[in-house]
Amino acid sequence: MRVIGIDPGLRNLGWGVIDMQGNRLTHVANGICQSKGDDLAARLLSLHQQLSDVMVQYQPDTAAVEITFVNKDGAGTLKLGQARGIALLVPAQFGLSVGEYAPNKVKKTVVGVGHADKGQVAHMVKVQLPGVELAGADAADALAIAICHAHHRPVASKQRMQA
Amino acid sequence: MRVIGIDPGLRNLGWGVIDMQGNRLTHVANGICQSKGDDLAARLLSLHQQLSDVMVQYQPDTAAVEITFVNKDGAGTLKLGQARGIALLVPAQFGLSVGEYAPNKVKKTVVGVGHADKGQVAHMVKVQLPGVELAGADAADALAIAICHAHHRPVASKQRMQA
Repeated sequence: MRVIGIDPGLRNLGWGVIDMQGNRLTHVANGICQSKGDDLAARLLSLHQQLSDVMVQYQPDTAAVEITFVNKDGAGTLKLGQARGIALLVPAQFGLSVGEYAPNKVKKTVVGVGHADKGQVAHMVKVQLPGVELAGADAADALAIAICHAHHRPVASKQRMQA
Repeated sequence: MRVIGIDPGLRNLGWGVIDMQGNRLTHVANGICQSKGDDLAARLLSLHQQLSDVMVQYQPDTAAVEITFVNKDGAGTLKLGQARGIALLVPAQFGLSVGEYAPNKVKKTVVGVGHADKGQVAHMVKVQLPGVELAGADAADALAIAICHAHHRPVASKQRMQA
């Protein structure tokens, strides 16, 4: 069972892929898609293309995206929503179901407490995926989402979704 | 020059296509994509597929999406942002530039005042596109966005965007 976790953002979209055999997790790859382009549509297209390339290269069986909590200004929330739309669309286009997890559930699963900071999350991702080299904080968060999904995903995790 | 206007929404995404010859506008088609699916990713996939079908069928040369103002709760803004991500992505995937217009600019262009209500917008869309049958309020708004873009679009309106 191969899991991709995605941490959506309009400038930097983190992703992380792990394999799960029984209860054993191993790191496959992680990275950050950086959006390019002069306008918003071009930036979203750039994210879509890069994330689609990741899907083709690593062929995950199931996907998870963090549930975003809204604690900034409305314009920031809208921007994040647009990136999150791409993060949810791409796995669906590859026929995967997409799990959604609240940040405190991800932290509780990976670190043991729901209020952990980014440094603690990155540390525990390294402990649980020995040898991993993190592409950055967004990629560490994405791996944490993948680890959370590996532990909590529903049994039927790969299914062609109906439009 | 064929223009598509898109009024994004997660449940109902309005679209409207018009042709512009000189200053003369004619209606081509309008409709509403209704998202289907049990979860958010499936709904976004459904919108993506339906809007892509519209693009294939009507082959617009340029696109415009309304700039959303945020005056509801954060969760509503996030949902709208996700649908808006799809509304911006699809035309970009077809190589179109995507204009963005604030609602009061759309209303000012179509009705003459920036604070017009939905009924006035629909009425003036009917006046400016004789014979049009509107699929609904969201489709009327989408046609208004297309009319606004026809009047205000930049000269170079079709270009392959670089990722």
